[in-house]
Amino acid sequence: MEKVVSLAKRKGFVFQSSEIYGGLNGCWDYGPLGVELLRNIKEEWWKAMTYRDDVEGLDAAILMHPRVWEASGHVENFTDPMIDCKSCKARFRLDTLAEQISDKKKEKILKEFAAELTDNEKAELDAVLSSDESLSDKFTALLENKNLSEKLLAHTNCPNCGTKGQFTEPRSFNLMFKTFIGPVESNDNVVYLRPETAQGIFVNFLNVQSASRQKLPFGIAQIGKAFRNEINTKNFLFRTREFEQMEMQYFVKPGEDKKHYDAWKERRMQWYIDLGMSPDNLRFHDHPQDKLAHYAKEATDIEFLFPFGWGEIEGIHNRTDFDLSRHEEYSGKSMKYFDDQTKEKYIPYIIETSAGASRGFMAFLINAYDEEEVNGEKRTVLRFHPKLAPIKAAIFPLVNKDGMPEIAREIEKDLRPFFRVFYDDKGAIGRRYRRQDENGTPYCITVDTQTLEDGTVTVRERDSMAQERIHKSELMNYLAEKLK
Amino acid sequence: MEKVVSLAKRKGFVFQSSEIYGGLNGCWDYGPLGVELLRNIKEEWWKAMTYRDDVEGLDAAILMHPRVWEASGHVENFTDPMIDCKSCKARFRLDTLAEQISDKKKEKILKEFAAELTDNEKAELDAVLSSDESLSDKFTALLENKNLSEKLLAHTNCPNCGTKGQFTEPRSFNLMFKTFIGPVESNDNVVYLRPETAQGIFVNFLNVQSASRQKLPFGIAQIGKAFRNEINTKNFLFRTREFEQMEMQYFVKPGEDKKHYDAWKERRMQWYIDLGMSPDNLRFHDHPQDKLAHYAKEATDIEFLFPFGWGEIEGIHNRTDFDLSRHEEYSGKSMKYFDDQTKEKYIPYIIETSAGASRGFMAFLINAYDEEEVNGEKRTVLRFHPKLAPIKAAIFPLVNKDGMPEIAREIEKDLRPFFRVFYDDKGAIGRRYRRQDENGTPYCITVDTQTLEDGTVTVRERDSMAQERIHKSELMNYLAEKLK
Repeated sequence: MEKVVSLAKRKGFVFQSSEIYGGLNGCWDYGPLGVELLRNIKEEWWKAMTYRDDVEGLDAAILMHPRVWEASGHVENFTDPMIDCKSCKARFRLDTLAEQISDKKKEKILKEFAAELTDNEKAELDAVLSSDESLSDKFTALLENKNLSEKLLAHTNCPNCGTKGQFTEPRSFNLMFKTFIGPVESNDNVVYLRPETAQGIFVNFLNVQSASRQKLPFGIAQIGKAFRNEINTKNFLFRTREFEQMEMQYFVKPGEDKKHYDAWKERRMQWYIDLGMSPDNLRFHDHPQDKLAHYAKEATDIEFLFPFGWGEIEGIHNRTDFDLSRHEEYSGKSMKYFDDQTKEKYIPYIIETSAGASRGFMAFLINAYDEEEVNGEKRTVLRFHPKLAPIKAAIFPLVNKDGMPEIAREIEKDLRPFFRVFYDDKGAIGRRYRRQDENGTPYCITVDTQTLEDGTVTVRERDSMAQERIHKSELMNYLAEKLK
Repeated sequence: MEKVVSLAKRKGFVFQSSEIYGGLNGCWDYGPLGVELLRNIKEEWWKAMTYRDDVEGLDAAILMHPRVWEASGHVENFTDPMIDCKSCKARFRLDTLAEQISDKKKEKILKEFAAELTDNEKAELDAVLSSDESLSDKFTALLENKNLSEKLLAHTNCPNCGTKGQFTEPRSFNLMFKTFIGPVESNDNVVYLRPETAQGIFVNFLNVQSASRQKLPFGIAQIGKAFRNEINTKNFLFRTREFEQMEMQYFVKPGEDKKHYDAWKERRMQWYIDLGMSPDNLRFHDHPQDKLAHYAKEATDIEFLFPFGWGEIEGIHNRTDFDLSRHEEYSGKSMKYFDDQTKEKYIPYIIETSAGASRGFMAFLINAYDEEEVNGEKRTVLRFHPKLAPIKAAIFPLVNKDGMPEIAREIEKDLRPFFRVFYDDKGAIGRRYRRQDENGTPYCITVDTQTLEDGTVTVRERDSMAQERIHKSELMNYLAEKLK
């Protein structure tokens, strides 16, 4: 992981936001190579999802009417429980406090705590302690237990200052960023930065359907930024405060939802594999029925094997008619679809595919990272699928004389309108190859002495390092074919 | 203008944000056709600006460290002067209050006001009144005059409730949206939604330069959202609270700034013309030296002739070393560039090209809008450049039988991986053409009886309405050539 983060910084994939000011926690900037990788991921997603006759595109605003978030349930439920230490004023998420206390300390606290419980409370404690969970999870379960929380906190030391039992009562903290629209900072003028792009699709369902004259089943796809005021950001791009989503909501007739859910589940997994992700690094994690979100009938995550363990990069959800029903209720506008074949009117079910562009970026980067030994030297290489590679081809004159630079520049000029190419004449040819390996550039074109004689160049393929000679006039078709 | 807005809504280019909740002022959603037009504009800009060996791409976060906006001057200066009516609590921008009062009323107010001035004040009033400006502008100048403002407001009636002279003192209202990062809503945790993308480029100057190993002159390009809490939003997409910018900052050696400023000025104007904007609808508006922004040495606007008059769609500015010097001062990090040819160290000058993607969208839409009479019927057509057209080709079976739909579907399937195409078999062929004219689709492909015999189809060109027959196997190359 550290190697990837360090390469990402050094080569210009990702920088810390506002780095010269010490950075802004949970926000990242994509540098020259990163912005191309991110654009390519988004472009491939857009093509796969909207170059179909049953899916329309959309780009909704980040700022939405505040009632949207009442209807969606975010104002009420999109919260984390927090406590403050009264002594040092440090603030903690209740559900992660346990991780900041050593196991030895936790055991000591639990012993003291058990000593002063009533019989009923003791029985509750024993029930929690007898589970198979980790000690941290058990401790968290007790902190979240209404009957036991207060007494347990009275024995718990602040992980920051060490003071015992000086915590405030737990209270809810909403994870939406809020701001004020217009010049008056009052409750009437609160708006939120959207915490997900999906709601922009739901509220536009009828607008899109009538403008596009689509019939069910059909989908609406959108790529855009979303924001969550996470208390704990972590794992590089995995949990950030500002991130980008690629979401598609597929509207179907109730009763046909299971069929479409299964189809999209397979289609979405295949998308990652087609773009070069190793199937060994991918798995489904189906949500058990008793742990589904309130809106979901069925849900699965596509998980990627990150260096810190399996993590979600996309969710596929059967959201039923929950969202459109809520918006019908809150807006007073009918969200029903008229089926002109059966003459029925109903609220469609929604199958959602919700991918994180930023998480996908990180997964593709980690998936591509490789080190190998070549002739006794370490080679670091990013094995991106050519469609995702930030630079498609690099062009080198073998030496900076004898007319080679002129021919190389000519090749660059011919290819540039069609592909992102890179010209490099600095350093030994081996070093130039290595630099492109680290950029993930799939093809390196070298102009050498033979080029001067017969117009052929060498094309070196990144992964195999095999070289072939082709005529410079064939380069355009060669690359177009490889990138198709 | 109304025609364009109505077409934009009906055909799915632009919807009001959160429309089912009554909309959110100053925010818009791009529908299925709109998102494609917007994507195409951004894609053409990205190619024109970054498919060069002297410009790198970047995608910086919307949330930045708050010190960035102190260094840039936005915290202090990005403000509008506001006054409130004490009686009805309505709030007004001081610089637009005059527009809301009739000229007759203004004259009456000025007369009363003049009667109670001292001789010195009278002289100031006469100086303002003797200018060539409009009455509204003169009135505004008086309101903004520190010596006269209070007395004039005492005679002015609230445009909302009519009460005279009950205004608060003018005070500054910052146009940045602010929010809080982390769980504590305190001044220490204020962050802003960026009001421009440029600062994300400035603070990353050294990161990008060292990762890309670029030498001066070189540029950094970025496309992204920006937010301004405008008091008065107006003119559809022209002044909105959420909008998208396409900015490029070109770093040059001091002394060479004029040369690069002139070159970028011409290059940027040509970009609009190459994408089909009529030169009659475009002009430069050079800022006079005495009206330049504090950071600028030279500045011009590219203006488009909107239905409401000329309006800026892009600004080109010589920002000197202002920005990097400020960030050096505020961050304590050196922003100097080491020139390894001359062995000098200096802060580069910056030439900025700052285009509004949302404004460009609106300008391209208006520029493309046309009505003409064809065989006695009105034809509405969007004459987009093929590269910008949301749909590149529509495919029609002449009738829905005799194997025509099968062939048409086959053509659709062949073209779809490469172009955004649209299949339509509903209604008379003439109506299908008209629908595509309104979408701005440059080519309509029709499968007819002759297709069944010899495999040829008709291709109808949108602007000339001329039709030619070509073999269906040639369609791919035909379109590729036209869209090159």
